[in-house]
Amino acid sequence: MNSKALGKVFLVGAGPGDPELLTLKAYRLLGEADVVVYDRLVHASIMNLIPSRTPRVFVGKYPGRHHTPQAQINDILVELAQTHGTVVRLKGGDPFIFGRGGEEALELVAAGIEVVVVPGITAAAGCGASVGLPLTHRGYATSVRFVTGHCRAGKPLNLDWPSLVSEGTTLVFYMGLANLDEIRTNLTRHGMSVRTPVAAVENGSTPEQRVHFSTLERVKNELAELSFRSPTLLVVGAVVRVAERLAPHMVAKPLQEASHAHLG
Amino acid sequence: MNSKALGKVFLVGAGPGDPELLTLKAYRLLGEADVVVYDRLVHASIMNLIPSRTPRVFVGKYPGRHHTPQAQINDILVELAQTHGTVVRLKGGDPFIFGRGGEEALELVAAGIEVVVVPGITAAAGCGASVGLPLTHRGYATSVRFVTGHCRAGKPLNLDWPSLVSEGTTLVFYMGLANLDEIRTNLTRHGMSVRTPVAAVENGSTPEQRVHFSTLERVKNELAELSFRSPTLLVVGAVVRVAERLAPHMVAKPLQEASHAHLG
Ligand SMILES: C[S@@+](CC[C@H](N)C(=O)[O-])C[C@H]1O[C@@H](n2cnc3c(N)ncnc32)[C@H](O)[C@@H]1O
Ligand SMILES: C[S@@+](CC[C@H](N)C(=O)[O-])C[C@H]1O[C@@H](n2cnc3c(N)ncnc32)[C@H](O)[C@@H]1O
Repeated sequence: MNSKALGKVFLVGAGPGDPELLTLKAYRLLGEADVVVYDRLVHASIMNLIPSRTPRVFVGKYPGRHHTPQAQINDILVELAQTHGTVVRLKGGDPFIFGRGGEEALELVAAGIEVVVVPGITAAAGCGASVGLPLTHRGYATSVRFVTGHCRAGKPLNLDWPSLVSEGTTLVFYMGLANLDEIRTNLTRHGMSVRTPVAAVENGSTPEQRVHFSTLERVKNELAELSFRSPTLLVVGAVVRVAERLAPHMVAKPLQEASHAHLG
Repeated sequence: MNSKALGKVFLVGAGPGDPELLTLKAYRLLGEADVVVYDRLVHASIMNLIPSRTPRVFVGKYPGRHHTPQAQINDILVELAQTHGTVVRLKGGDPFIFGRGGEEALELVAAGIEVVVVPGITAAAGCGASVGLPLTHRGYATSVRFVTGHCRAGKPLNLDWPSLVSEGTTLVFYMGLANLDEIRTNLTRHGMSVRTPVAAVENGSTPEQRVHFSTLERVKNELAELSFRSPTLLVVGAVVRVAERLAPHMVAKPLQEASHAHLG
């Protein structure tokens, strides 16, 4: 097979869940795809936008079952690109922010397959907007840092904790819900106050969105009591106080505007 | 005037420049707005999507002229909300990432005006995708930090420099082009190698996009020689090495696909 015959893979960010937060480009590509490869983080209301004739390949993880290893996903993408024209690999949020898009891109490029990356609204931006959480609010933060709250299963988080405790920085933990004890212990050990405000956003931007404001000390127990589940984003830092003022005016918005009728 | 008569303000992220990177929601709101308030960072090809009948209010900064102070922008938004129905305040990238959306939201809420924040593709995600820069590439980075490279005019950057030098973190400087000397001096003083790779992306995602790969030591002179101008994003850290492998397969994409005919 010569290289002209090879297909093209689009690594596409689907955003945090609200279908209206897809980019125009992502939306167009969903209509043009010959096949869509997706995982569990892509919200059902987004999957519903794909034409019914388009085949879908699921490569995600079901609770309690084994998930498809990354190496196998890479192989599936290469194979589909060779047998189908336009492959859309749909990912929650942004492909390059804790999305493993880099690994897939390297693999495809090595196989001589053309790759286009389409950015998506990452969870921090999506949750920030719907809660009223200005991540870099002037006078409160000069930087915002997105941190993985999960490394390898069973292993301790391998983070540079002293550097995470820094005035003027908003910390955003992705995948941190299961490791809240470890996060609190390490941040406080390096000098962060247990009273530092924390916002937790579950299913941000979707009709199921829930928000809880707490502190580093209390957040773990409170979220357990409220049965917060994945996907949940944790935001730590002074800007959360601004969100506490703005959220009452914002939080209900995704619900009120959830019709999306024009996309049907 | 009772509160029912007040309009509604949408703080809308316009993304990094490519009109196809608008969200579906931003695109819809541009069509529905009674007035659009915008500044210089919003790309002309996005302004062209606004129906010609819709009035526009410019609140940005022209080179060499005074810009509209933030307090005045806030007043304009409140006033327009009282006289027009739907006000769209369009901002480059995401409204809450170095976009001063928090200040505008607080002001509007204080005036009793409804606010909805619509997230946008922030420059880091937009530039990352079009260059092939996986911001949190596994084995290279466990966090990514967006940092302001500009504080008050004439004042030194007020950043927690020791914490910025942290293995496993990708640094992304917004508005850092004019302060590259200060950035290099401070990072190296706190232990970062002068050979740390740096990627500079000018006008990311647009047909005018330029990319330059360099190091902390050389980047300032090289960008001066190449006449890089604002808006330029600077990415510092090991993931830039992955981008050096991916970029040759990606960089040309925005140009090849810049027709956007379907939006016309
Ligand atoms: C594997 S990471 C993928 C992140 C994704 N690539 C992005 O840019 O948002 C999954 C984590 O993202 C966060 N997340 C994704 N979507 C979310 C949403 N709608 N609400 C809250 N958190 C979300 C959660 O912390 C979740 O555990
Ligand atoms: C005032 S900040 C606004 C950031 C915006 N709110 C966002 O989320 O991207 C302006 C800076 O963003 C960066 N920037 C914005 N758009 C860009 C683009 N298309 N290419 C490169 N950098 C960009 C530049 O560093 C610029 O100096």
